[in-house]
Amino acid sequence: MKVLITGGAGFLGQRLARQLLAQGRLTDSSGQLQTISELVLVDVVAAHDFGDARVTVVTGDIADGALMRATVDAQTASIFHLAAIVSGQAEADFELGMRINLDASRLLLDICRELGHKPKVVFTSSVAVYGGKLPEVVLDTTALNPQSSYGAQKAIGELLLNDYSRRGFVDGRVLRLPTISVRPGKPNKAASSFASGIIREPLNGEAAVCPVSTDLRLWLLSPRGAIASLIAGHELAAEALGASRTVNLPGLSVSVGEMIAALEAVAGSETAQRISYAPDPAVERIVKSWPGAWDTARAAALGLTADADFASIIRAYIDDVKAG
Amino acid sequence: MKVLITGGAGFLGQRLARQLLAQGRLTDSSGQLQTISELVLVDVVAAHDFGDARVTVVTGDIADGALMRATVDAQTASIFHLAAIVSGQAEADFELGMRINLDASRLLLDICRELGHKPKVVFTSSVAVYGGKLPEVVLDTTALNPQSSYGAQKAIGELLLNDYSRRGFVDGRVLRLPTISVRPGKPNKAASSFASGIIREPLNGEAAVCPVSTDLRLWLLSPRGAIASLIAGHELAAEALGASRTVNLPGLSVSVGEMIAALEAVAGSETAQRISYAPDPAVERIVKSWPGAWDTARAAALGLTADADFASIIRAYIDDVKAG
Repeated sequence: MKVLITGGAGFLGQRLARQLLAQGRLTDSSGQLQTISELVLVDVVAAHDFGDARVTVVTGDIADGALMRATVDAQTASIFHLAAIVSGQAEADFELGMRINLDASRLLLDICRELGHKPKVVFTSSVAVYGGKLPEVVLDTTALNPQSSYGAQKAIGELLLNDYSRRGFVDGRVLRLPTISVRPGKPNKAASSFASGIIREPLNGEAAVCPVSTDLRLWLLSPRGAIASLIAGHELAAEALGASRTVNLPGLSVSVGEMIAALEAVAGSETAQRISYAPDPAVERIVKSWPGAWDTARAAALGLTADADFASIIRAYIDDVKAG
Repeated sequence: MKVLITGGAGFLGQRLARQLLAQGRLTDSSGQLQTISELVLVDVVAAHDFGDARVTVVTGDIADGALMRATVDAQTASIFHLAAIVSGQAEADFELGMRINLDASRLLLDICRELGHKPKVVFTSSVAVYGGKLPEVVLDTTALNPQSSYGAQKAIGELLLNDYSRRGFVDGRVLRLPTISVRPGKPNKAASSFASGIIREPLNGEAAVCPVSTDLRLWLLSPRGAIASLIAGHELAAEALGASRTVNLPGLSVSVGEMIAALEAVAGSETAQRISYAPDPAVERIVKSWPGAWDTARAAALGLTADADFASIIRAYIDDVKAG
């Protein structure tokens, strides 16, 4: 079985690759458990290959039709389409966001349609598809109303994946991810970058700036939880999904203040005091438009689960960093 | 003021053109009432020009970038984007539907974005954006879940128009039209074609086949009501629309049986008896996925109104046919 990850050099892509190489198997579209013989990691920068002979690294632009037609073939049984231009950057560079978040997604789906082999396609969507006046807990039946170009592009990707699935071109599943925290590494151009930064930087002994008010509620999932959800979402039988391929993944509803309190509880007040506060209206406008919680009944019925609490997320992050 | 209608040779396009020529004025994006100096009718077949010197007819493919860049310019203050591949045809020919319903819409928006003059753009959407398990009366906050490619393409167009408006590239308004009945002319490839055919053909002394059960509820708007709504939607101030540019236009919730009873009341039982019944699963699957009614509170607050009852719609149709 050949498996492809777009955004394979990214943080989630690399973690997912490592997990897939470790478990060695996935369920294909016909419900058969298959051995992963090849794992293709596509990204604009070269992905780490883990020194594993099953890994093929493809470096290039995922909106490039020639590259992608040379990369995806009728043996590609599963695709995790994680590559994206993040929210802040898609807002700053409209054309780049449209090219990667919309055109490249459609290209990938059209290549599958032309090949006709109906692969599983896991597409990651986001809290950013919601916006405007929202109920305190968003339901599966709540209308999308994205207030960022990133959110609009993700919502369009959802519609495409659902229609291509309905027509039998792919066996798609859309997993709406909560905000991922705590991400390792450096700040990025996502409007939600601070949701990791206010934990990660203080733990590194560095200063962090919180750009939003502490009563803002975020809907969070740990990196470990995200990888587990991506794989569990892939493994679901298509019939379990019914008339919509879109699943709101479980998360934790935590205020920024509660995140900081958990950091203090886990790492001490000196660490928490490395956070200063400076509102950033551009960040706040986007992040405030996202839901602070959504209903997880459908996800729970499908066997998908969230983290226990934010303190455990911080502890898992510390363990992961120690483990390298 | 230069005004453009895509689908200008179509049934709604021609009616809209006639009305715009008659009234001679529209409100521009800055709220000023302007005289219509030029009305451009673009369509794949040549539009009728009404012998009016203000009309320019452009014949060609609206997905053709060169044609559209030569047609839309910085003087084009208002665009009514009506051109579309109808539901049944977009289901039968996926690529054609994507090219006209998605690519051409995006091309039009991108040309406006590049020109930078922020025209008003009226985009017609449809009941077909809804689907799956729906409440008896759909609300503005009900999630879209299209069960046809046409519906998915219209939902994507809505997202694009909203995001391009939010970013200030256009001053857009999305008007979700009920099913239009009674359309004059011949049956077309829309799944809802029968909703006009079962009235029009019997009134012409011809046989008609009803492909759905008579208890199916449709959400209907007359041609006169549609033209009035398109113009009223254009005239709205952007500020009145708030965080979403999408408006569910008022309609009448009428069962197919009630439509036929109204035909009998207006034109006699001999006329109504020209209808025979033969279920068409392909038509029924699509049309049953559409809402039979939606909440009109927002539209009413914006001053938009529906027809009085279906019998008046039939009488208006008869008058319009007599008037030629």
